[in-house]
Amino acid sequence: MLYFNNDYNQICHPAVMQKITENAGVQTPGYGTDDCCARAAALIREKCDAPDAAVHFLVGGTQTNLTVIAASLRPHQGVIAADSGHVNVHETGAIEATGQKVILVPAPDGKVRPEQVAAIVESQSLSMDAEHIVQPKMVYISNPTEYGTMYSLSELEALSALCHGKGLYLYVDGARMGYGLAAKNNDITLADYAKLCDAFYIGGTKVGAMFGECVVIKNSSIAEDFRYLMKQRGGMLAKGWLLGLQFEALFEDDLYMQISAHADKMADQIRNTLTSLGYALYLPGVTNQVFVALPNKLLDELGKEFTFATWEKADEEHTVVRFCTSWATLQENVNKLCSALKHLV
Amino acid sequence: MLYFNNDYNQICHPAVMQKITENAGVQTPGYGTDDCCARAAALIREKCDAPDAAVHFLVGGTQTNLTVIAASLRPHQGVIAADSGHVNVHETGAIEATGQKVILVPAPDGKVRPEQVAAIVESQSLSMDAEHIVQPKMVYISNPTEYGTMYSLSELEALSALCHGKGLYLYVDGARMGYGLAAKNNDITLADYAKLCDAFYIGGTKVGAMFGECVVIKNSSIAEDFRYLMKQRGGMLAKGWLLGLQFEALFEDDLYMQISAHADKMADQIRNTLTSLGYALYLPGVTNQVFVALPNKLLDELGKEFTFATWEKADEEHTVVRFCTSWATLQENVNKLCSALKHLV
Amino acid sequence: MLYFNNDYNQICHPAVMQKITENAGVQTPGYGTDDCCARAAALIREKCDAPDAAVHFLVGGTQTNLTVIAASLRPHQGVIAADSGHVNVHETGAIEATGQKVILVPAPDGKVRPEQVAAIVESQSLSMDAEHIVQPKMVYISNPTEYGTMYSLSELEALSALCHGKGLYLYVDGARMGYGLAAKNNDITLADYAKLCDAFYIGGTKVGAMFGECVVIKNSSIAEDFRYLMKQRGGMLAKGWLLGLQFEALFEDDLYMQISAHADKMADQIRNTLTSLGYALYLPGVTNQVFVALPNKLLDELGKEFTFATWEKADEEHTVVRFCTSWATLQENVNKLCSALKHLV
Amino acid sequence: MLYFNNDYNQICHPAVMQKITENAGVQTPGYGTDDCCARAAALIREKCDAPDAAVHFLVGGTQTNLTVIAASLRPHQGVIAADSGHVNVHETGAIEATGQKVILVPAPDGKVRPEQVAAIVESQSLSMDAEHIVQPKMVYISNPTEYGTMYSLSELEALSALCHGKGLYLYVDGARMGYGLAAKNNDITLADYAKLCDAFYIGGTKVGAMFGECVVIKNSSIAEDFRYLMKQRGGMLAKGWLLGLQFEALFEDDLYMQISAHADKMADQIRNTLTSLGYALYLPGVTNQVFVALPNKLLDELGKEFTFATWEKADEEHTVVRFCTSWATLQENVNKLCSALKHLV
Repeated sequence: MLYFNNDYNQICHPAVMQKITENAGVQTPGYGTDDCCARAAALIREKCDAPDAAVHFLVGGTQTNLTVIAASLRPHQGVIAADSGHVNVHETGAIEATGQKVILVPAPDGKVRPEQVAAIVESQSLSMDAEHIVQPKMVYISNPTEYGTMYSLSELEALSALCHGKGLYLYVDGARMGYGLAAKNNDITLADYAKLCDAFYIGGTKVGAMFGECVVIKNSSIAEDFRYLMKQRGGMLAKGWLLGLQFEALFEDDLYMQISAHADKMADQIRNTLTSLGYALYLPGVTNQVFVALPNKLLDELGKEFTFATWEKADEEHTVVRFCTSWATLQENVNKLCSALKHLV
Repeated sequence: MLYFNNDYNQICHPAVMQKITENAGVQTPGYGTDDCCARAAALIREKCDAPDAAVHFLVGGTQTNLTVIAASLRPHQGVIAADSGHVNVHETGAIEATGQKVILVPAPDGKVRPEQVAAIVESQSLSMDAEHIVQPKMVYISNPTEYGTMYSLSELEALSALCHGKGLYLYVDGARMGYGLAAKNNDITLADYAKLCDAFYIGGTKVGAMFGECVVIKNSSIAEDFRYLMKQRGGMLAKGWLLGLQFEALFEDDLYMQISAHADKMADQIRNTLTSLGYALYLPGVTNQVFVALPNKLLDELGKEFTFATWEKADEEHTVVRFCTSWATLQENVNKLCSALKHLV
Repeated sequence: MLYFNNDYNQICHPAVMQKITENAGVQTPGYGTDDCCARAAALIREKCDAPDAAVHFLVGGTQTNLTVIAASLRPHQGVIAADSGHVNVHETGAIEATGQKVILVPAPDGKVRPEQVAAIVESQSLSMDAEHIVQPKMVYISNPTEYGTMYSLSELEALSALCHGKGLYLYVDGARMGYGLAAKNNDITLADYAKLCDAFYIGGTKVGAMFGECVVIKNSSIAEDFRYLMKQRGGMLAKGWLLGLQFEALFEDDLYMQISAHADKMADQIRNTLTSLGYALYLPGVTNQVFVALPNKLLDELGKEFTFATWEKADEEHTVVRFCTSWATLQENVNKLCSALKHLV
Repeated sequence: MLYFNNDYNQICHPAVMQKITENAGVQTPGYGTDDCCARAAALIREKCDAPDAAVHFLVGGTQTNLTVIAASLRPHQGVIAADSGHVNVHETGAIEATGQKVILVPAPDGKVRPEQVAAIVESQSLSMDAEHIVQPKMVYISNPTEYGTMYSLSELEALSALCHGKGLYLYVDGARMGYGLAAKNNDITLADYAKLCDAFYIGGTKVGAMFGECVVIKNSSIAEDFRYLMKQRGGMLAKGWLLGLQFEALFEDDLYMQISAHADKMADQIRNTLTSLGYALYLPGVTNQVFVALPNKLLDELGKEFTFATWEKADEEHTVVRFCTSWATLQENVNKLCSALKHLV
């Protein structure tokens, strides 16, 4: 079976593994207070051109989202998110479990628009009963989004300007940040994120690490006592240096960008094959996720050799599926998939 | 100024006040463990034809909703509600503050449909990632709804059957229950609520009481240790017998129904006047709330003598407003309002 | 049966009732945004010599404590309290239900000492693992305490200085504040509370009101958006003016102090009788609560005519009980109790 | 510098590392739904003689404790723990952050006694105000305790009988379970834990794994929907098979017991050296932690070559410290430590 189901189906990139095994015999202080985490944080600050940013390492994405949001909001405040946002649909109510409301905006392409945020802020703040309504205080976006779409720099700038003009935090879930940074049309850099956002995370789990997410916090209100929150929410790894080692491996030689570019290129080949076969992509993606509606019959056949994720029913005879590439995807397997798509038509 | 802004702008019905003042010198045990609460609970059980129901008295609606929901759900479970539901829009995130997600369905008329509930349950339970999605476990409805519309008995039966077939609780917010029970076309009785729901509350604050809501719990899983939850959430009144006295006054001689019918009749007169003047009602109400889009100019004039609630902008020149009657609304004031509406056209 | 079980066993002082009944026909805006609440708040600010204080009215004590604490702390912060503190023992975990830890200090007389607070702060902040330990951020005291004891002004000043020196909030639960203010040896005024504390509440439920507590907030960090928190936690009464009316009645003519002094005097008579009979008081009280260990046989007899609260077992043959007076306690009933105590020896 | 500061200062046992590197190229389903987790769970069930137990793998101890407790309790229920318990002192209020109270018992040796639990249960359930007091529903113990002491089988049986007789769950935090199982005087087996407890976890992080804890749940009320809770609290690792691989490595050949026994033996040598030098151990330990009060001067010297954990001040001239061994502790380093202790006297 050849796996195109997701981007976290293999342990980690060999360079990450090597960095870990090399350090097998080293004795290290715990909880991320070690030199290795310090070096990795310094690397990240440099890549982000953000010498004063707080940088922390956590194990997974849900954990990271809930910890950042719990650190940011008072009890009566909420976080605005796309209805397709990971915090809304795929974290089993993790945000609500911290006591906070997720305020939804419809987002057919996974993206939150400044005018949607403005409308919510105005509706709440101008209401005669403002105190009866959750106060919007943060905007959560994913980039790339859960649909593999991307914000442009000008879109991110507009959202950032709106948020900061209204006193809201802007937070970016970067579970697949590498695949976005390396995408063909992308014009956002890590330095842009650091300049425009109050906090964001650079995903490791889906981009070459064994596990791990790196949070970059620019706003000191969120950064204050952040490690307390990490510990409280179960996100402070005892052997924290394992996270430092991995991010050092990913960022010391631009490995993060190289492997992300590879995945995007593999996805491009699938996209091109599909469009050349006349299939309309579900959404115009440029990263490592390809969403397309395919005939159920074709999918039945394809499923015998390839895994992919079933997204939703398109119509009686078609289903939207996702093909996902990663740092680990082999060229030969993509060739086989494309070839199968051509022959199974 | 004549008040049509809401149904809780006057202290309480004279019979309620009399019951309280009569008891001014009596010394009574605290926290609702008194004879008076026991008598009121017995009256309610009788009216509901539910001899085994648990009956509790709380001070306000938000408090009641959050306590019932906290008592009903495990941390990973959520409550389905209309997007216009009070728990979603007007309780400052009270439900999320208890850790629970409110799962929204679009409801242009304020009503949740069984097929909407079924779709959410199926989508979650059949997902490959079911455990990543909040598990729907309760349906919250308001009857009358926040828009003054009503479920029919057959609609309530269908919703109840769906919920119980899928293992969900059905909970009814009856903040304005009296105005619903007394409405012209209503075919649901208190006994029906007790038969079809797992829990519901009979609103006092908006229907003649000084304050107070009466929760009726049929499902023993929700009823278990409910008083602990009341105390924990600040909903156990020290002088609990004040609640018992009020519900006794409201229910010993059908006062609750009589005053509700009066308010509905007053609202009917306003509705009839508006339609006779050619204004289309915003939603076809039958209870004590009248929603209508009126010209802004007319509203400016009307606002000099009458209060009403501004709901939302209809278009550049019209605004949706609500006229609300209550047990306390005087016939002469309704006449004045109707007369003003006719002359201001 | 004559009631000495608690100080909330009768509805309210006649002057409070009169104020309410006088306003029965008045129509008023909701949620505490009315003139009456504004007048009562102004009165309170004047009595507290605190023209800039935020003043809010809530229904009950547990509700007030949990709302103030939720408004004050970030998730990783805790509130220090005596082990006998109401928030620790008698609120069914209301504070923990908001997510916050109550950090306990042993307090045989119900009072928290500055050196206890200092020790906790130092132990946490100097720990190598500070981030693994809840950060103390607030001190909760009751005055009078749950044992009827009192802080002196110099004790309150010392605690306040310590708290503010360490960056902690000081919050006073004044459920029985009147009985403390009026006590013989008391040297703390409302203005002192306003000067020394970040927030405190003036209890109404136990001191003549039908229900209600008045929160005075001096620290703007706690005051910010406080009404959102009130609404979210179910503590914003729809007919908020009922609270304003009551506090106006209690404070416009010093009624609060007069009725409190009466209760303290009644308790003094019981204390004097007990000590003249050779019984040692359990703790040296000066307010409306009298704690004493009495022979079980005597209590059995006494219980036939009088109610009192059973506190704890003293030894095999004695039990600690509490006699509680209030604004409503009649001189003749105290005479009867004292007489019974003398004859039952 | 030679490390005796804790038992998680090195990445993992070579056999664990080998199992991971061997699987570097394998593609695997996510979130613990893979064959490897299934094999590891089967191994654990077999070792526990508990064919029906639910077995789950989480990343860290705080995460595990908070998830199990959140899965077990309703909002008004609390968990009894020793005041020295990890959930009370070293998890930054993680349990309270889920809404639950930790009810403390004094425990000079880190152990909870059945009579302490019985006293709390009786005091709460027999109180006239039972509903005002958190309902005890679970007992949390650590074995070995945070002080390195151990429960005997008969003590565990007594605690289990008391808990189950009173309707409480018994939960064991086994962060250092291996060091306990392998201790000289230990008479508790994994099968005993499975028989006597409702849930417990077998620690990996401190006993040879890179990270990971294995929860065994016997009580179906706690087990129901447990994976939802894991996901919600950020404890469901995307590459869950990493946990399965590690526990397979630790349990397929009794590696877990062998490396634990080694650590205990190393600690015994340190203990023997200390007692032969006339130092009284702080508490009579038998596992991998040695607590002893030593002269500050000696510690200053020792600290130049060895790391250890500073526990608390004993008196002006002595400090309680902890020497901790692990699976990774080398015999030659223990020899050097013992030699230094002898020469520095």
